Amino acid sequence: MKVDGKHFRSVWRERDGWSVGAIDQRRLPHEFVVARLTSCEDAAVAIRDMLVRGAPLIGATAAYGMALAMREDASDAGLKRAYETLIVARPTAINLKWALNEMRAALAPVEPLERAEAAYARADEIAEQDVEINRGIASNGLALIEAIAAKKPGETVNLLTHCNAGWLATVDWGTATAPIYLAHERGIKIHVWVDETRPRNQGASLTAWELGHHGVPHTVIPDNTGGHLMQHGMVDLAIVGTDRVAANGDVCNKIGTYLKALAAHDNNVPFYVALPSPTIDFAVSDGIRDIPIEQRSGTEVTDMTGLTAGGRLETVRIVPEGSPVANYAFDVTPARLVTGLITERGVLKPDRASLAAAFPERIAAAAE
Amino acid sequence: MKVDGKHFRSVWRERDGWSVGAIDQRRLPHEFVVARLTSCEDAAVAIRDMLVRGAPLIGATAAYGMALAMREDASDAGLKRAYETLIVARPTAINLKWALNEMRAALAPVEPLERAEAAYARADEIAEQDVEINRGIASNGLALIEAIAAKKPGETVNLLTHCNAGWLATVDWGTATAPIYLAHERGIKIHVWVDETRPRNQGASLTAWELGHHGVPHTVIPDNTGGHLMQHGMVDLAIVGTDRVAANGDVCNKIGTYLKALAAHDNNVPFYVALPSPTIDFAVSDGIRDIPIEQRSGTEVTDMTGLTAGGRLETVRIVPEGSPVANYAFDVTPARLVTGLITERGVLKPDRASLAAAFPERIAAAAE
Repeated sequence: MKVDGKHFRSVWRERDGWSVGAIDQRRLPHEFVVARLTSCEDAAVAIRDMLVRGAPLIGATAAYGMALAMREDASDAGLKRAYETLIVARPTAINLKWALNEMRAALAPVEPLERAEAAYARADEIAEQDVEINRGIASNGLALIEAIAAKKPGETVNLLTHCNAGWLATVDWGTATAPIYLAHERGIKIHVWVDETRPRNQGASLTAWELGHHGVPHTVIPDNTGGHLMQHGMVDLAIVGTDRVAANGDVCNKIGTYLKALAAHDNNVPFYVALPSPTIDFAVSDGIRDIPIEQRSGTEVTDMTGLTAGGRLETVRIVPEGSPVANYAFDVTPARLVTGLITERGVLKPDRASLAAAFPERIAAAAE
Repeated sequence: MKVDGKHFRSVWRERDGWSVGAIDQRRLPHEFVVARLTSCEDAAVAIRDMLVRGAPLIGATAAYGMALAMREDASDAGLKRAYETLIVARPTAINLKWALNEMRAALAPVEPLERAEAAYARADEIAEQDVEINRGIASNGLALIEAIAAKKPGETVNLLTHCNAGWLATVDWGTATAPIYLAHERGIKIHVWVDETRPRNQGASLTAWELGHHGVPHTVIPDNTGGHLMQHGMVDLAIVGTDRVAANGDVCNKIGTYLKALAAHDNNVPFYVALPSPTIDFAVSDGIRDIPIEQRSGTEVTDMTGLTAGGRLETVRIVPEGSPVANYAFDVTPARLVTGLITERGVLKPDRASLAAAFPERIAAAAE
C-alpha cells in the first residue's frame, strides 16, 4: 500500500538484489524508518525485537533471513544453523515455523552453490503468495462493501475494525484491511472507525497510521465506543482479523473483539472476520474451550509510550503504584456472533461443515 | 472511606470550623494532596478546574462555597453574587444547581447576621444526606453480594466495575462502590476487576486508587477484557454507576458500559446499576432515543498523562498526527440488559412501572 503516495511493502528485497528492507514498526506511528537487514542475525533480531510483527510478515522476513544466511554459508551446517537461529526468534509464531520449513524443504535438495539463488527465489514466492492470498480476501470482501454501498447510493459506508490486521501485519494489503483498500481504490466512499485497541494500541498506532498515509478516511475511537456507534446506525459493517479460527468457526483475536461482536449482533450490524486460510486450525475443535489465551506483561497496561510536546518519545505510568493489573492478550468470539469468514476461497459460514467443505484437503491432512 | 488507614471524605469542614478541605483529584493517582478552600471563589475554581468532580461531590462543594461566601458578605447582594459565581462553574452538573437552590431557599428567609451559621448547617446536611443515601445503596447492594458469597462458601466473590462511581465521586462510600466497601467491612472475601475506562482512565486512576488505599483487593484491566473474564466464569457480579436513568429504566453511563452489559447478558452474569434516586430523570421517557450524548475534546483520546520513570508528570501523544478522533463520553444501556437498579429505596426492576411505584412523589411532581 502507499505511504504518502509512494508504494511500500512491509518487507522487500532491496535494489542491490540481496539485502532486505523492512519498515521498523516499533517507531510507528511517530517515525517512519526503513531498516536494512544484511544478515540472518539481522532478520532474527528484527523478528525478536518486533521491528516486524504480524504472522505473515514474520514468515516472509524469516524466509529472507534464510536467504541472507545462504549468501554467507550455504553448507548443510549453515542451513541448519540459520534455521535454528530464526526458529527461536518468536516461539509462538506459527507462520515462522511454516516459512522456515518451506525454506528448508526447498533448499535441502539443492547443491550448496545454488542455495542462495534458490533461497531468494523461494522467499520471493512466499512473500508473493501472501500478497496473492490477501488480494483474494480483498476481492471477496469487496462484494460485501459494494452491496452496502448499493443500498445507500452517494452515502459513505462506515466500517469498524479492531487492532491491526492491516498491510503492516502482512506483506501487503493486510487481511481485515484488504477489502477496505480495494473499496477505496474502486472509488467507493468509505470511512473506518479504528478501535485504539488497548493495551498495546495497535489500532491507534498502526491501523490509523496506515489508513491515514494511504489516504483512507478514518477516525480513531476508544475501545469503549463501538457499541454506542452501532446502536445509532453509525456502523454498516465490522471487519476484524484473527490469530486462529477453530474448526467450529470460533474466532480467536485481539482482546475486545468479542465485545464488538456482541454489539454488532445486538444491533444487526454484519460482523465479518478476514483471514488467510492457514489461520484455520482444524486440530482445535472448540475455540472457546480449547484455545489457550496468552497473558502478557502488566507493563503493557500500566505504561504508555508516546510523543511529548517537545517531540521526544517518553513512557509514562498511568496506573497507581501497587495496583495489580491483568493483561489477557486475546479473546474468543463464539461462531454464533460471526456473520462470515472472508477467506481467499470465498466468504464462508463460520461452522464446522462449511469450513470442512471449503478445505477438504486440510481435513484429510488432519485425519492422517 | 480510608486512605492508608486514615478516614477521609472527599470534602469536609476543617477543624477551624469554617474553611473547607477537599482532595485534589487532579493529582490522583500519583499524588495525594489536600486543598484548603477559604472563599467562594476557591470553591468555584475547585469545581471548574475539576479538583472535585462527581455530581454529588460537586453539589456538596458548591454548598460549602455558599457558606464561605456568607462569611464575607451575607447581604442579599452577596447571596445573589455567590449563587451566580458557583452556578457557572460546571454548566451541565444537575447536582450543582440542586444544591445551590437548596442553599438559596434555606438562606433567603434568614437574617443576614445569621446566614453564615445557617449556611454551614445546611451544607453539612447536604453532605450528610449524600452519605446517608450511599449507606442505603450499600446495604441494599450488600444483600446481592452476600447471596453470591453464600453460594460459594470460602471462595472469593469477583465483581467488575467501570469508570469511577466511588467515594471520590460522592462525599463518602460512593454508589457502585458502596456495596463493595460494606461487603469488605463485613469480612466477605471480594475482588474487584476495575476497567481502566478510556479515554479519561477514571477506573485506573481513581477507582483503583481508592480501592487500593482502602485495602480492597482489585485488578486493573483494559476495557477490552471484561467479556473474556465473564465468558470464563471469572466475574460473579457487575456493578456500575450512572449519570442518568430514564423513566423506562435505560441507563446512561460512561462510554463502554453498554458493551459490558452485553457481555454480562451473554454469560448470565448479573448486571446491576447503583444510583441515588435523584439520578432518575422521569422527564426522559426513552433513554436510548432521548438522552443526548456529550462529545468531549479529542485530546482526551490522543493524549495520555502519567508519571515518568523520573517521577515527573508528563503528557504524551499516542495517536498519529493527522488521524481524526471521536470522543463520545457516555452510552446508554437498554433496560433489558440491566438486572436491577440498586437505590436507597431498594433494588428495583429497570422498568417504567417499578420506577413509578417506588417514587410516586416524583411522578406526581413530573405531572404538575
